[in-house]
Amino acid sequence: MAASAPSSSGGEADPNSTNLRPPGYDAWCGVAHGCTRKLGMKICGFLQKNNSLEERSRIVSSFKERAAKNLLSCDNIGGDARFRRTETDFSNLFARELLPAKNGEEPTMQFLLEVVEILTNYIRKTFDRSTKVLDFHHPHQLLEGMEGFNLELSDQPESLEQILVDCRDTLKYGVRTGHPRFFNQLSTGLDIVGLAGEWLTSTANTNIHFFPPAASVISPELLFRKIAPVFVLMEQLTLKKMREIIGWPDGEGDGIFSPGGAISNMYSVMIARYKYFPEVKTKGMAAAPRLILFTSEHSHYSIKKASAALGFGTENLILLNTDERGRVIPADLEAKVIAAKQKGYVPMFVNATAGTTVYGAFDPINEIADICEKYNMWLHVDGAWGGGLLMSRKHRHKLNGVERANSVTWNPHKMMGVPLQCSAILVRERGLLQGCNSMCAGYLFQPDKQYDVTYDTGDKAIQCGRHVDIFKFWLMWKAKGTVGFEQHIDKCLDLSAYLYNKIKNREGFEMVFNSEPQHTNVCFWYFPPSLRGLPDGEERRERLHKVAPKIKAMMMESGTTMVGYQPQGDKVNFFRMVISNPAATRSDIDFLVEEIERLGHDL
Amino acid sequence: MAASAPSSSGGEADPNSTNLRPPGYDAWCGVAHGCTRKLGMKICGFLQKNNSLEERSRIVSSFKERAAKNLLSCDNIGGDARFRRTETDFSNLFARELLPAKNGEEPTMQFLLEVVEILTNYIRKTFDRSTKVLDFHHPHQLLEGMEGFNLELSDQPESLEQILVDCRDTLKYGVRTGHPRFFNQLSTGLDIVGLAGEWLTSTANTNIHFFPPAASVISPELLFRKIAPVFVLMEQLTLKKMREIIGWPDGEGDGIFSPGGAISNMYSVMIARYKYFPEVKTKGMAAAPRLILFTSEHSHYSIKKASAALGFGTENLILLNTDERGRVIPADLEAKVIAAKQKGYVPMFVNATAGTTVYGAFDPINEIADICEKYNMWLHVDGAWGGGLLMSRKHRHKLNGVERANSVTWNPHKMMGVPLQCSAILVRERGLLQGCNSMCAGYLFQPDKQYDVTYDTGDKAIQCGRHVDIFKFWLMWKAKGTVGFEQHIDKCLDLSAYLYNKIKNREGFEMVFNSEPQHTNVCFWYFPPSLRGLPDGEERRERLHKVAPKIKAMMMESGTTMVGYQPQGDKVNFFRMVISNPAATRSDIDFLVEEIERLGHDL
Repeated sequence: MAASAPSSSGGEADPNSTNLRPPGYDAWCGVAHGCTRKLGMKICGFLQKNNSLEERSRIVSSFKERAAKNLLSCDNIGGDARFRRTETDFSNLFARELLPAKNGEEPTMQFLLEVVEILTNYIRKTFDRSTKVLDFHHPHQLLEGMEGFNLELSDQPESLEQILVDCRDTLKYGVRTGHPRFFNQLSTGLDIVGLAGEWLTSTANTNIHFFPPAASVISPELLFRKIAPVFVLMEQLTLKKMREIIGWPDGEGDGIFSPGGAISNMYSVMIARYKYFPEVKTKGMAAAPRLILFTSEHSHYSIKKASAALGFGTENLILLNTDERGRVIPADLEAKVIAAKQKGYVPMFVNATAGTTVYGAFDPINEIADICEKYNMWLHVDGAWGGGLLMSRKHRHKLNGVERANSVTWNPHKMMGVPLQCSAILVRERGLLQGCNSMCAGYLFQPDKQYDVTYDTGDKAIQCGRHVDIFKFWLMWKAKGTVGFEQHIDKCLDLSAYLYNKIKNREGFEMVFNSEPQHTNVCFWYFPPSLRGLPDGEERRERLHKVAPKIKAMMMESGTTMVGYQPQGDKVNFFRMVISNPAATRSDIDFLVEEIERLGHDL
Repeated sequence: MAASAPSSSGGEADPNSTNLRPPGYDAWCGVAHGCTRKLGMKICGFLQKNNSLEERSRIVSSFKERAAKNLLSCDNIGGDARFRRTETDFSNLFARELLPAKNGEEPTMQFLLEVVEILTNYIRKTFDRSTKVLDFHHPHQLLEGMEGFNLELSDQPESLEQILVDCRDTLKYGVRTGHPRFFNQLSTGLDIVGLAGEWLTSTANTNIHFFPPAASVISPELLFRKIAPVFVLMEQLTLKKMREIIGWPDGEGDGIFSPGGAISNMYSVMIARYKYFPEVKTKGMAAAPRLILFTSEHSHYSIKKASAALGFGTENLILLNTDERGRVIPADLEAKVIAAKQKGYVPMFVNATAGTTVYGAFDPINEIADICEKYNMWLHVDGAWGGGLLMSRKHRHKLNGVERANSVTWNPHKMMGVPLQCSAILVRERGLLQGCNSMCAGYLFQPDKQYDVTYDTGDKAIQCGRHVDIFKFWLMWKAKGTVGFEQHIDKCLDLSAYLYNKIKNREGFEMVFNSEPQHTNVCFWYFPPSLRGLPDGEERRERLHKVAPKIKAMMMESGTTMVGYQPQGDKVNFFRMVISNPAATRSDIDFLVEEIERLGHDL
């Protein structure tokens, strides 16, 4: 096999290899060859040509001694000598020759190191402001196979050379979400420790798993005795820490990591239903009266998705009015609760958003909690986006009252910069998650079990196996400390205040609402000079509606920066700037503003 | 900063660095230092001591020339000179000094390379039969902090040295799911190309995303113009290929990757409901009659979870009787459908399992499909475990009739060896996924959109952002070809036939059911000599029930191998062997059998 040739012909620094060499090839050469064959051969040639036997002998002794002390390996001081890239011809290598194939270790290491080089180059470029945020192509261009990048799958294997090319191309045609000038999503940035955690997670390739038995029988074996004990413990500890930060006494309660905020929010609705109408689990929605859910007109659509999926019906989700800043008006909630009750319906669940998607608004949790208590409703706080602010002593007051919530969604993959995906649903009352989702509660009380069921998370989930989302988060927390998250959040909020102050009175810019940003969301219109003279009216609105999409399209084609836009209610398309990227600085904010002016000037 | 010292003091091979050096430090030294500081300094010292100025000048010229041609980098032939591990003191380095920090590039590269060394060592050991499958500890031991492994999170950051130690410890205390003797789960093995794909995915750190607007307004921007165009296209192509393999004409239909088989199965129930009673989406379950779902008593509990979560109620999920082999008896289905109709209920959905969790049984799809057609019910095939057999010309007949299904769950992360997680829900009728889960169908028909909505997957999902599960799978398919998956599956099924034939008449072993395995599941009891003389009866049953758990506990403590067990119906605990691990060979099967005998002999 081609790839193993270099290592068997001197590619590795083996201090004993001189025994196998012809005369004239001495230890010096062995050492030198350990460096690279090309450099090594040069050194050998030099030694053999220019030095007396005594001198060579002395040098060889010196190097032998160092080699014996393991001080001489070329690229790996004090490490594993096998951890080294060698010249490998991947064009004749195939996946079937990698581990677990016989002699697969060397090609496996070489292949993985080649991949890591591709990835580390990508990481370097991600943080380099002179590279593009994206290299834009239309889907049909990709499908037609750009410059040899062919997405089609075939019956026969392709060489590892081609696989490496595919890796490079895939990164090339993607968006660099960690780029300092990428502001398009709530989740941006590329945290290096989190990334390392994710690489490790995928290498461990394990589920936070509950062994899937038949529907009628649950195995008495426990997951922590089986698969991912460390990850389960990390989940427990981290969730407890999050509950402490929320403010629940002693961090008591329950929780689980789920595949994203939408599923976390769905959990909250399921648990609330189980709390008030547990018989729905066995008898279906027919066993309950008409149940009503409430959420802000500015809230995330996942609440609406949950109302459809779980059998409530979207018509039974009532949208609440907000003030001009996008915050729920508590009086509107109470009025709608009373109206629902008068119709004979049962108000059951209120979602308060901590950090809305577009405006970054924080609903007044305490006032909403008062109403929930008064009418015996479940209070959920969707802090998918704003939950991170709990880590900041300066900003956590925006979530005052969160400790009164029955459940909280909090996505560390958003404001806390944890790699995707990492979302938690936290529940104040212990046992509900399990009661709601366990399909065989009896087994929990089996008299013969010999372990502590505290760690049995499997039956809390609607999933069977769950992806391990905890490790990267836990590792980042270790590496940054609570204070590190706090600094990150404070910095992002400072940057958004900087942007707000920069543009609030700037010519051509107009804020969507006039107040300091609560979160990092800054919403604004840009008026090109041609629109500035127009009187307020339908024509101006229509033209303004097209400005942000046009600027965005130009941004994408030039690849310089990315920011999102959308309409909201009766407001035409505006830019929504969000800052969660730890790489962003004031100069990047300046750049964005100037880029909008540059691209939009002649519209 | 400690880590940057090596690079600023000659750690990198910079051919121009001589300009900045004191006299006597020549280009030779620069080159030599590019190798390692220790080796480089030795070479420098030697040159300066032993050679005339002319000789040194000549050598330097020669090396300058080579350096200019980029032929001289120490460990990186023809590659990027920065891709090299150097001696780095991580004990004084912190996460805040990594990228995007100023001068963060070098410590970032060193940290990631150190992580990669940890991971590649783990990978080597994973495939090494002389290492343990797991290093067993009780949770309380872990919590008490084993040998310095402290799970607690603190306010202050820890050094990167500690983070690296934590990475090593985490792997140490986990289960090596890729070990050739790990047979405990349906998902085993560690595919190197898939792993590379997962590393890349996490580095790209992007969602297959739909921009989350407020509940009331959906943005007209399209995800492929924003975030993950390549991944979306890969998903489309791969799902189409899977549909072709299922046998739907021209691969037409729809589908999406979801966070695991349980969620995929939940999708199938949601879509079926939407097909027959679309008004449930807006009006809730109250708008539908009493709907009945059917699934085998051997099926996965996720169908039951879905019936609870979606508001059907578990009592409206009817379990179907099976034959001794664990396959649904079609006549039982028809009888129960008729009984439900007679009560005035509406039979709506049948799940046929292709590969049950415990027995590996394949329900007779064609006969079930006949009944579904006759009574106008949705046919879902849960091929989470058995779907992979569709890739094998030899074994795909076990799923005959699958092309008649309305929806299919198929988890490439199980039988096809794709790293966790990778599960697809495939739907024959186009538009249902979107109709069911879209929260604002109107926007799909906006007259001003300028793109092809084919690629808009966001609104098909119950999630908002989705983890990118496609890339590793697509990359593996490229690398192995369809034939590679086929070979893997055929090999695993051969191995299970080998195990079956080995133990079916072996003393002390008894099969749970007597027939060749349909899938790789082999279910058997082991009778220690002390039980063999006992008459069939309650005492024998009770004692046998304890044998598998005891053997498993000893296996875990010795860490030699891992296999699962459970009871099923009236059958006491038995071993369930499953083989999906590409590393397993006949010798590993032999080892398992002998290990069970060794550990169980004296029970």
